[in-house]
Amino acid sequence: MPKSTTTVAQHLLNRVAQMGAAHVIGVPGDFSFPITDAACVHPEMKWVGCCNELNAAYMADGYARVRGIGVLTTTFGVGELSALNGIAGAFAERVPVVHLVGMPATSTQALRAIVHHTLGDGDFGAWAGMSSRISCASALLTMDNAVAEIERCLNAAAAHSQPVYIGIPADVAETPLSNSSLPQIRQPLRSNPASDHDALHAAAEEILERIANSRRTCILVGSIVARLGLRKQTTDFVEASGLPFATMWMDKSILDETHPQHCGMYSGSLANDQVREFVESSDLVINLGAILSDLNTGIYTAKLDRMRCITIMRNTTTIAAAAYRDVHMSDLLRILCVGCKRAPKKSSWPSIQGLGAPQGDPEGPIASPFLFPSIEQFMRTGDMIFAETGTISMGLLSARMPRGADFMNQALWGSVGWAVPAGIGGALADQMRRTVIVTGEGAHQFSPQELGTASRMGLNPIIIVVNNSGYLTERILCRDPEMQYNDVQPWNYSALPEAMGCAGWKSTRVQTCSQFAEALAAASHHGNGTYIEVMVPRDDLPPFGKSIRNFLHSMRGVQVVNHPPERPLEALTSARYMA
Amino acid sequence: MPKSTTTVAQHLLNRVAQMGAAHVIGVPGDFSFPITDAACVHPEMKWVGCCNELNAAYMADGYARVRGIGVLTTTFGVGELSALNGIAGAFAERVPVVHLVGMPATSTQALRAIVHHTLGDGDFGAWAGMSSRISCASALLTMDNAVAEIERCLNAAAAHSQPVYIGIPADVAETPLSNSSLPQIRQPLRSNPASDHDALHAAAEEILERIANSRRTCILVGSIVARLGLRKQTTDFVEASGLPFATMWMDKSILDETHPQHCGMYSGSLANDQVREFVESSDLVINLGAILSDLNTGIYTAKLDRMRCITIMRNTTTIAAAAYRDVHMSDLLRILCVGCKRAPKKSSWPSIQGLGAPQGDPEGPIASPFLFPSIEQFMRTGDMIFAETGTISMGLLSARMPRGADFMNQALWGSVGWAVPAGIGGALADQMRRTVIVTGEGAHQFSPQELGTASRMGLNPIIIVVNNSGYLTERILCRDPEMQYNDVQPWNYSALPEAMGCAGWKSTRVQTCSQFAEALAAASHHGNGTYIEVMVPRDDLPPFGKSIRNFLHSMRGVQVVNHPPERPLEALTSARYMA
Repeated sequence: MPKSTTTVAQHLLNRVAQMGAAHVIGVPGDFSFPITDAACVHPEMKWVGCCNELNAAYMADGYARVRGIGVLTTTFGVGELSALNGIAGAFAERVPVVHLVGMPATSTQALRAIVHHTLGDGDFGAWAGMSSRISCASALLTMDNAVAEIERCLNAAAAHSQPVYIGIPADVAETPLSNSSLPQIRQPLRSNPASDHDALHAAAEEILERIANSRRTCILVGSIVARLGLRKQTTDFVEASGLPFATMWMDKSILDETHPQHCGMYSGSLANDQVREFVESSDLVINLGAILSDLNTGIYTAKLDRMRCITIMRNTTTIAAAAYRDVHMSDLLRILCVGCKRAPKKSSWPSIQGLGAPQGDPEGPIASPFLFPSIEQFMRTGDMIFAETGTISMGLLSARMPRGADFMNQALWGSVGWAVPAGIGGALADQMRRTVIVTGEGAHQFSPQELGTASRMGLNPIIIVVNNSGYLTERILCRDPEMQYNDVQPWNYSALPEAMGCAGWKSTRVQTCSQFAEALAAASHHGNGTYIEVMVPRDDLPPFGKSIRNFLHSMRGVQVVNHPPERPLEALTSARYMA
Repeated sequence: MPKSTTTVAQHLLNRVAQMGAAHVIGVPGDFSFPITDAACVHPEMKWVGCCNELNAAYMADGYARVRGIGVLTTTFGVGELSALNGIAGAFAERVPVVHLVGMPATSTQALRAIVHHTLGDGDFGAWAGMSSRISCASALLTMDNAVAEIERCLNAAAAHSQPVYIGIPADVAETPLSNSSLPQIRQPLRSNPASDHDALHAAAEEILERIANSRRTCILVGSIVARLGLRKQTTDFVEASGLPFATMWMDKSILDETHPQHCGMYSGSLANDQVREFVESSDLVINLGAILSDLNTGIYTAKLDRMRCITIMRNTTTIAAAAYRDVHMSDLLRILCVGCKRAPKKSSWPSIQGLGAPQGDPEGPIASPFLFPSIEQFMRTGDMIFAETGTISMGLLSARMPRGADFMNQALWGSVGWAVPAGIGGALADQMRRTVIVTGEGAHQFSPQELGTASRMGLNPIIIVVNNSGYLTERILCRDPEMQYNDVQPWNYSALPEAMGCAGWKSTRVQTCSQFAEALAAASHHGNGTYIEVMVPRDDLPPFGKSIRNFLHSMRGVQVVNHPPERPLEALTSARYMA
């Protein structure tokens, strides 16, 4: 190929590299060879082959949470459909994964040929149609539209912080573009449309006035802040205003948990009473990018009257009953930072306590009072921790993360099995930081294969598998915890790294507190992957898990998970989150 | 619950039990608890919990291929989306999997509440919409429509032999039905609409006349025959007519391979020359339910002139250029059986040869000439063999299966990783037969987890994992076999059964011909699961694989996989298969 040309696939990889991606994660297939060929030889990108596509999608999700963009490639039909659950999670939780799907050549499609990976009915558009619901933009590339459609999709991914779907017929992927036609798109991607100037300033003025007149204001900092890359600006606003902030389940560690204005976790009436009392007695609550889902609101036990709430989402701000549209969060934060005078400290607030010292007999079994505080103490400045959504997160949510440490979970989408591949994706995305992954053994069975991929990529995650003999989260959610479907096949988990070729990894099964402490200490010094299977009693629950279980039992007659209150948290309707 | 009532979930399970299902395969989730609760206590059904939903869908597919119906249950969003690739494969290959999806309660949906497993936007219909493209019928049950919609969907599954999607809100699943309202649906399910009487008889007459006037007729027996439960009728027709039959890739063993009228595998110009010559020189070719896909036609090298073809599909028969619609295959076969006089044997035909004796130095490495003939010799009357679609199938397609043995693969949909879970599903479906599963190690990495499930269910599959150090099928399809994306992480495969808790299984890695022979011999006598990792050279290809590779290399300039001939096999357009 002459030096003066770039193929469509190369151009696409150039653009995602400019956005910050350094790896293409996926599984090859014959229709996607032109994409994987380009990925393997691209000067700035590395190919990361996964064992299957769902795991690859989780990895791209974890990667994008850390790096701001993830690139996934799969093949037509079989590959892309396997990835859908992972992409849907990224869409729900606003993680920008660029999904590149290799399609049969244009001529094959035109002939409606019966080829593999189709239904045999000549329809080549079915799979793109299924993905469109979970993509903020979708395109099927042709030789004519490729450059423009790539820009449209990548701009959308950047602006919405959500997945995009780009279907690329094999012949189109290899079509050369003249380099001279491409200079205008070397600029950075537009990240946002401009705010409505009037709405922006009216909203800002109203918010500043409400803050000034409030006796007690509390900020709820939410995950959308991180997804939109606004953690620094949010910290600036928090500090300029002097206001305390709490975080909810999905939102843990979005701002530094050692910050003196941090008051801990809010989860309605199910977790910390001091924080609940503080938030719910505030006469002004500023929700900055938090999603009021069932898990975030302590299963709808949160009491947040819309008339004392300000809700700032990506592009819409709601003050009591009034919505201000086309107000971008970043523009609003900038004005609020400048405009808010540091309030005299009108009141004290709770401060985050953390889990305290691990409790347990050194030679006795490991249970929650030892398990979770030990993990908390193990965390170091700048670490990343990926926690499975269920009882693992319940145990860790009240832990105090050290400065600069990130706690990742997936509590809106809640796909079981996310943590291990997503954590490996995170470790890949930032290899200077230490990655700790904590999962339950039931969840681990969904997606164990990428242990081998982590080893192959030279990553050194510390993986803690809590073996509690079944799906513990389901045991507390269902009517009869003894139902057979909550049991899983007992594996020898600590044998998995060896079976999956993780050379040089340290893998142990621990049964006593001192063994666990030793294993963690060893992990700190082991310059390779560490895998720790932690045996715990079958029904061992952390306090927050007990609180959820007891609440559900008390409400069993009305099946609260399935029957939220009649007007659930009308301060935020479901429709507003996506705004 | 009073004895005189049945809940919607119980009723649904009663109906699928009447259709022949004895197991509910799936993964539990909180929205689907009412379904899994009902499955665990149903007197005629057993619960089979899998490690993840895609594996569960493959298992249900394998189960349904053996038993005529499979029942899969997953939870809303996360679970059902993970299963989509497996369901799409069942749709493409006409396998009736009933997919029961547990949804949030009606009241939750009405409130548009932000609950887990949603996008947080209040849309509860998105996932059903995505599944509708790969379901021959879909329903969202309500208290009012449940009984009627269940009947509609199950009838469709039986008639089309394809998946159906039934979404069941948690409250609806537990709604009691009065038993007295249910008697009319105790009857067997309708399997087909009636044929158009005129079209049926006109088509039959025309076919009989063409057979009578033909110098040489060959039948191509296809997978649709098996899916519609018409193997017996097809054998009757073959015997009544005295006509020889060949089979293609997807269609292997649909009729007994020891039958004297069987002439072997037809795969265009890429496999058996004698069979090609015989089929292509016949002046009449009767395609009985075979799909003329790329893999079935030797990558479009098959030469089948539509004017000498009769194509009999589920509900449409095409004779040369004329289509007869609403002619059901079963009705047509019945008339043809009666009407066709056993033709005097006008010609001889090739007879299936099989692979011959295994060739290899007992103490030397194992390669194709030893590997595949050894597997052929290992097969016994009535066995089921599940083969991964790629080079594994290429090696086994020309093997001669013993009487009553079934060879299963997935060559239209071609999802890598299908064989092991599907084979375990098959073993579950008929525990009186022996199940042999053959896969490559790259494919095995997609879905190894259900080894543990097989053990837990007390199944004794014989699993042969051919370790050829990467994706060999991709190496022969792509431009440069050395591309990095064809490599996979080297696992210690033979350690997997132990790691996954397969108590009492025999697992070995074999490197020489005599070791493999011994391992197979031991498998014959081992009353528990057997797992054999077979080390073969990296680029070892069976003859059919070499033929495909050489053909692709010779056509490389025109990328034949992606560029079928201009008028590919117009005897069958893609649109016709689904008729």
